[in-house]
Amino acid sequence: MKIIHILLLFTLLSFTISHASVNDFCVADLKVPDTPSGYHCKPLANITSDDFVFHGFVAGDTKNSFNAALTSAFVTDFPGLNGLGISAARLDIAEGGSIPMHTHPGATELLIIVQGEITAGFLTPTAVYSKTLKPGDIMVFPQGMLHFQVNTGKGQATGFLAFSSANPGAQLLDLLLFSNNLPSELVAQTTFLDLAQVKKLKARFGGRG
Amino acid sequence: MKIIHILLLFTLLSFTISHASVNDFCVADLKVPDTPSGYHCKPLANITSDDFVFHGFVAGDTKNSFNAALTSAFVTDFPGLNGLGISAARLDIAEGGSIPMHTHPGATELLIIVQGEITAGFLTPTAVYSKTLKPGDIMVFPQGMLHFQVNTGKGQATGFLAFSSANPGAQLLDLLLFSNNLPSELVAQTTFLDLAQVKKLKARFGGRG
Amino acid sequence: MKIIHILLLFTLLSFTISHASVNDFCVADLKVPDTPSGYHCKPLANITSDDFVFHGFVAGDTKNSFNAALTSAFVTDFPGLNGLGISAARLDIAEGGSIPMHTHPGATELLIIVQGEITAGFLTPTAVYSKTLKPGDIMVFPQGMLHFQVNTGKGQATGFLAFSSANPGAQLLDLLLFSNNLPSELVAQTTFLDLAQVKKLKARFGGRG
Amino acid sequence: MKIIHILLLFTLLSFTISHASVNDFCVADLKVPDTPSGYHCKPLANITSDDFVFHGFVAGDTKNSFNAALTSAFVTDFPGLNGLGISAARLDIAEGGSIPMHTHPGATELLIIVQGEITAGFLTPTAVYSKTLKPGDIMVFPQGMLHFQVNTGKGQATGFLAFSSANPGAQLLDLLLFSNNLPSELVAQTTFLDLAQVKKLKARFGGRG
Amino acid sequence: MKIIHILLLFTLLSFTISHASVNDFCVADLKVPDTPSGYHCKPLANITSDDFVFHGFVAGDTKNSFNAALTSAFVTDFPGLNGLGISAARLDIAEGGSIPMHTHPGATELLIIVQGEITAGFLTPTAVYSKTLKPGDIMVFPQGMLHFQVNTGKGQATGFLAFSSANPGAQLLDLLLFSNNLPSELVAQTTFLDLAQVKKLKARFGGRG
Amino acid sequence: MKIIHILLLFTLLSFTISHASVNDFCVADLKVPDTPSGYHCKPLANITSDDFVFHGFVAGDTKNSFNAALTSAFVTDFPGLNGLGISAARLDIAEGGSIPMHTHPGATELLIIVQGEITAGFLTPTAVYSKTLKPGDIMVFPQGMLHFQVNTGKGQATGFLAFSSANPGAQLLDLLLFSNNLPSELVAQTTFLDLAQVKKLKARFGGRG
Repeated sequence: MKIIHILLLFTLLSFTISHASVNDFCVADLKVPDTPSGYHCKPLANITSDDFVFHGFVAGDTKNSFNAALTSAFVTDFPGLNGLGISAARLDIAEGGSIPMHTHPGATELLIIVQGEITAGFLTPTAVYSKTLKPGDIMVFPQGMLHFQVNTGKGQATGFLAFSSANPGAQLLDLLLFSNNLPSELVAQTTFLDLAQVKKLKARFGGRG
Repeated sequence: MKIIHILLLFTLLSFTISHASVNDFCVADLKVPDTPSGYHCKPLANITSDDFVFHGFVAGDTKNSFNAALTSAFVTDFPGLNGLGISAARLDIAEGGSIPMHTHPGATELLIIVQGEITAGFLTPTAVYSKTLKPGDIMVFPQGMLHFQVNTGKGQATGFLAFSSANPGAQLLDLLLFSNNLPSELVAQTTFLDLAQVKKLKARFGGRG
Repeated sequence: MKIIHILLLFTLLSFTISHASVNDFCVADLKVPDTPSGYHCKPLANITSDDFVFHGFVAGDTKNSFNAALTSAFVTDFPGLNGLGISAARLDIAEGGSIPMHTHPGATELLIIVQGEITAGFLTPTAVYSKTLKPGDIMVFPQGMLHFQVNTGKGQATGFLAFSSANPGAQLLDLLLFSNNLPSELVAQTTFLDLAQVKKLKARFGGRG
Repeated sequence: MKIIHILLLFTLLSFTISHASVNDFCVADLKVPDTPSGYHCKPLANITSDDFVFHGFVAGDTKNSFNAALTSAFVTDFPGLNGLGISAARLDIAEGGSIPMHTHPGATELLIIVQGEITAGFLTPTAVYSKTLKPGDIMVFPQGMLHFQVNTGKGQATGFLAFSSANPGAQLLDLLLFSNNLPSELVAQTTFLDLAQVKKLKARFGGRG
Repeated sequence: MKIIHILLLFTLLSFTISHASVNDFCVADLKVPDTPSGYHCKPLANITSDDFVFHGFVAGDTKNSFNAALTSAFVTDFPGLNGLGISAARLDIAEGGSIPMHTHPGATELLIIVQGEITAGFLTPTAVYSKTLKPGDIMVFPQGMLHFQVNTGKGQATGFLAFSSANPGAQLLDLLLFSNNLPSELVAQTTFLDLAQVKKLKARFGGRG
Repeated sequence: MKIIHILLLFTLLSFTISHASVNDFCVADLKVPDTPSGYHCKPLANITSDDFVFHGFVAGDTKNSFNAALTSAFVTDFPGLNGLGISAARLDIAEGGSIPMHTHPGATELLIIVQGEITAGFLTPTAVYSKTLKPGDIMVFPQGMLHFQVNTGKGQATGFLAFSSANPGAQLLDLLLFSNNLPSELVAQTTFLDLAQVKKLKARFGGRG
């Protein structure tokens, strides 16, 4: 009787398998350009369990001037996320360090506190929504809002971030204003900062002009 | 005066035609890999009426152990559906046959009864939404819900299915659990089925392990 | 040992059940106004199998001047479709009848031929995509395209329509141009039809002005 | 101390830059076929400010039989719009001219009046929503609705159009019905127009059949 | 024969009209709270042409410290836009004035130059995409990117803005950092600005703390 | 000079503030029914920092027959997530325990391993994608796929889950098949399980029928 079942299997499988690779998942082929909806799908025959697993979600080196490190698991790091609308990052902040003001243009961020104490918040013109968070707390930063995270406790603080996009982007305000070649006068005019302040931070963040 | 109109036509057509092929429709080129939003678009010059028509939406052979057949008109069968968020299938169930428990991870299903009697339903942990359907009845199975269809009448039953995706997928529970190489012990542990039951169905559905 | 399981059940059910009603499905409460994403959800406690079933998907009366009838199963007829991106209609065309030119602003249409012969097509400025269809054929009409269906065979023709929206809308060209109060002169100016032709059809379709 | 900052910069930039090109913007590479979500993204290294700027949004030549001109800035004209869900066009209508009845299958249209007087409206079977507009007025035409614009003032009228799609399409009713090869008899049957009227307009708009 | 047609009309209208109000458009009822997809729909019977027209898209008063004015036509100003994914604003900048650095978290922006000269741009950590724009030019600012507009010409400059959302939001950097009650020390720590600079701008923009 | 700035502020704030509450975020009002896009938005005046923070993301009690616990932070637990397309859960599995086979109909799941060892995987008819995961590993389970997690290490295992929906749902296979009132014979017919096996598990999971 097994023979009939196997035949049946092929009948039905011709229905189910032929489509299994198309929309159920679409592992990114990072070697060709992407599209507005994400990368091309790798052929089903080439996909293995490894495509759905990311290794190295560990503490980054916080010995830098921010005293902080971000380890990202975005689609470009983790091709199995392609088209699935989610990604992650790990945040380590040494005592006294911070992740300065930044936005994610294409994603909401969720911050899960794992260790230490982080004071975090996001800004609107009339209100600041901020909180001092400890392990067991989660905070959400709605898409596109300017936000920050500061280690306000003793010792290292660690958090896990989840994003509502496979590629959330990350725009640090200081890098936007002070690390590219936008002329200092134009930065001053469009931020109301003093020109001397702009030039000082341009020197610090490597900007020209 | 016709000359002026023809000129006008070209003026305006340069506006309308040049874009006609881009988003108004996008017939799939199935020869290159797809993306999370679907397949690449065939060039407009190569598109004919045949791209928008599917033939062979007829009764499949129900002489198999399910006593049922599915004939799919998904984007991989019918390239004109690409990017349009809809597809169809035909369901034929011989007397006493059934489409066993399955889900469509990416689509809601609509079942239109054409002939015979089908008892169908979908499951939640606390309720079963099921009904015995006859010609003139439609039932909807919301996206991702586990559902079934059984011929509970006399003679063959036929239904037409519409899906809210060009590629709905179809995951038959028995094939997921018993036709691949997931170890029997692991299946038993994660389903609470008896190991003997798992092994019996693994044998029937061609699974290894 | 059952007691432990029941306890467990409550533990887990508090996780699963409390959310079961929210996004897994959202049956429309048609008594309050809708939103851009659809109607409010009926409370889970009031939902029964009947919410997911539509009766009366039968031949409409074709004794009218189009010799055709449409029976719709849209969200306003079938509340279980709310938020699910799919709906259906039944098309009956008497010999010689037709569904005249129309568009669905918010949905792609799939036409499954059940009986008889229908010649159908959709229009672009430079090409007509049309076909004479018989039982076993499906044709797709991409979202927003002007299209038509004519019974070109012997006897009644029947088709089932599926739409990629719970509420596809339906805009018959003659009703848009000739059944409302748009002044005849303005219709003539913006369609290049002769004024006499406009007035003749205004009389036929009940338009004023 | 600058050295540390530069090092830090590279640490953080490896995080931020590597993703900057993927989803923050996706300038269209128009040389390869598109997908349902738009065109492939040009490599970041090839993108310049010019990709985000469109020149030539100026008055078109209105010396044609519509006495009107449309200048489009769609994704095929302006690759920086790719995947961003927005585009524009400029409308110039000479005294007495009009943009005849048309639809945009994939976009809502916003009309901002810049100069002159335009009477515009869109149609439903039971109501016409129309208005005589002057500079300082905006009108919205919801996606897929049949609409028109007529210069009802003195001198030229100009408007700017914005669309909720990078490629809205544009389907002029007269071109759909009278400029392709749909047989005149079929046009008459599916529009209720007199056959003589159909043939007259087929001659005017270049249609065959 | 007219009687038959009128009868037919009612037959078909029962099909078309009953749905006309649901998804073809959804004019906002601003008196009740909104949802993630927008406001509730006003009843069809209460909708008039005025719901689809916005008046007062005229120059705002630029006699302020930015020497600039924004006149918005968002869904809260113009209820007909509800659910349609588009809105507009008018930008007037006096000689020497500017719209300082800001983002729109939920929309791409299109800037159409109508009069004068505007230098505009958006920022990434490694590149500035900027251009000096004149009438006939359009520039696009992808969703969520930090951008600015400066009048770099003689006399007043005017532009029309279109957004890919009915409610794009607008977050001016100076208001986010200096007009709410975020403590000055925290602003300094998370922006690397000098504390004195922060306090100076807090005084200017009305912030406390 | 401050007076002018304050005036300016009000001018601009009337532009920015009035919209700040609408789409930038939409905290759920859980007291009224939801819609397909989520819950109604709480008035801006009632929103505080607490709406964006979830407390109690701690280990659940694993003393149950699964030896596992799930602590959810979905929109019904955490109203600030409304409309933002993301949520989280915490997973604790005692030694030897497991989260049995289940699906999330509306979300992709990301599993971040925090402690211990978890063997996890998802199923297709022809392949199993599974892996033994340790701290520092992430695995993704694409939307709607049947998957499992087993503690295969020593001591308790803990993971954090992120979902691509504010309300992902959770459908445990055993509860779907054995805890509701679907008749045992129908379960057996549509799963190919032996009737005795079905009845045994119905007794265990509290099902009737």
